[in-house]
Amino acid sequence: MMERVPGALGTSASLALRLGQTIFSSASLLFMCLDVEFYSYTSFSYLVTVMGLVTPWSVSLALVDAYSVFVKCLPRHPRVLLILIVGDWALSFLSLAAACSTASVTSLMVSAGPSRCPSRLCSRYQLSAAMAFLSWFLSFASTLFNLWLLPSL
Amino acid sequence: MMERVPGALGTSASLALRLGQTIFSSASLLFMCLDVEFYSYTSFSYLVTVMGLVTPWSVSLALVDAYSVFVKCLPRHPRVLLILIVGDWALSFLSLAAACSTASVTSLMVSAGPSRCPSRLCSRYQLSAAMAFLSWFLSFASTLFNLWLLPSL
Repeated sequence: MMERVPGALGTSASLALRLGQTIFSSASLLFMCLDVEFYSYTSFSYLVTVMGLVTPWSVSLALVDAYSVFVKCLPRHPRVLLILIVGDWALSFLSLAAACSTASVTSLMVSAGPSRCPSRLCSRYQLSAAMAFLSWFLSFASTLFNLWLLPSL
Repeated sequence: MMERVPGALGTSASLALRLGQTIFSSASLLFMCLDVEFYSYTSFSYLVTVMGLVTPWSVSLALVDAYSVFVKCLPRHPRVLLILIVGDWALSFLSLAAACSTASVTSLMVSAGPSRCPSRLCSRYQLSAAMAFLSWFLSFASTLFNLWLLPSL
């Protein structure tokens, strides 16, 4: 029963999902943070805050999954799984909101012309929003897989 | 068993939720649409599109609920309920995205000063975004209640 659901906590598919979340959320954070002006826009600061929450969450769950896959299969309690699902769910909503705000503000700045945003900066903002969307998608997939497992426990 | 879950399809709590969604989504649509310039911004057009989808969906489900409460209790099939859950889920994601984009673009325009947006227009945009957030919240609540009912069928 433990390996029946791919993508649930402790399987190799879940490890792949978590690694993808880590890569995309830290890429989004870096694209936005290595710029010096992100704190002058509300939505860019919000994106940095949310991605700063998503990255440690994904890293720690990737470590749990790696331990469970390579060393010893950990037992799964329904209460732990419930906390995981609620956390994933909340973080996926937050990262969707952050990605949408960043994308819409960037598109407004692009339409305002190069006086508002030089093309080098604007493409970095766009890349950061795209990475945030990918991170949302993977975290939503994790939620669905864990939610699927919950009734069987 | 039919009335055990408040808020599921065909109960009076569900009727209240659907009426609330109808009111908030149409208010958001009207606050944005009675303005003539909404189509010059991508995120405002997106909000209008999404709210134009949410309003008829909520109205038709409110009619189904009203029929079920006041006239005759309709049978509930798992397949119909699954379509409802998926539709509510997709619309709640879309309306969260639209509300976030509108709110962030509005806050950017407010910070740009009154030359960019006169205060009468800006407060209407803000009201529209707030109504879209409320509509998202109610539609998410409907999703959760129906999802809770699904395993018992």
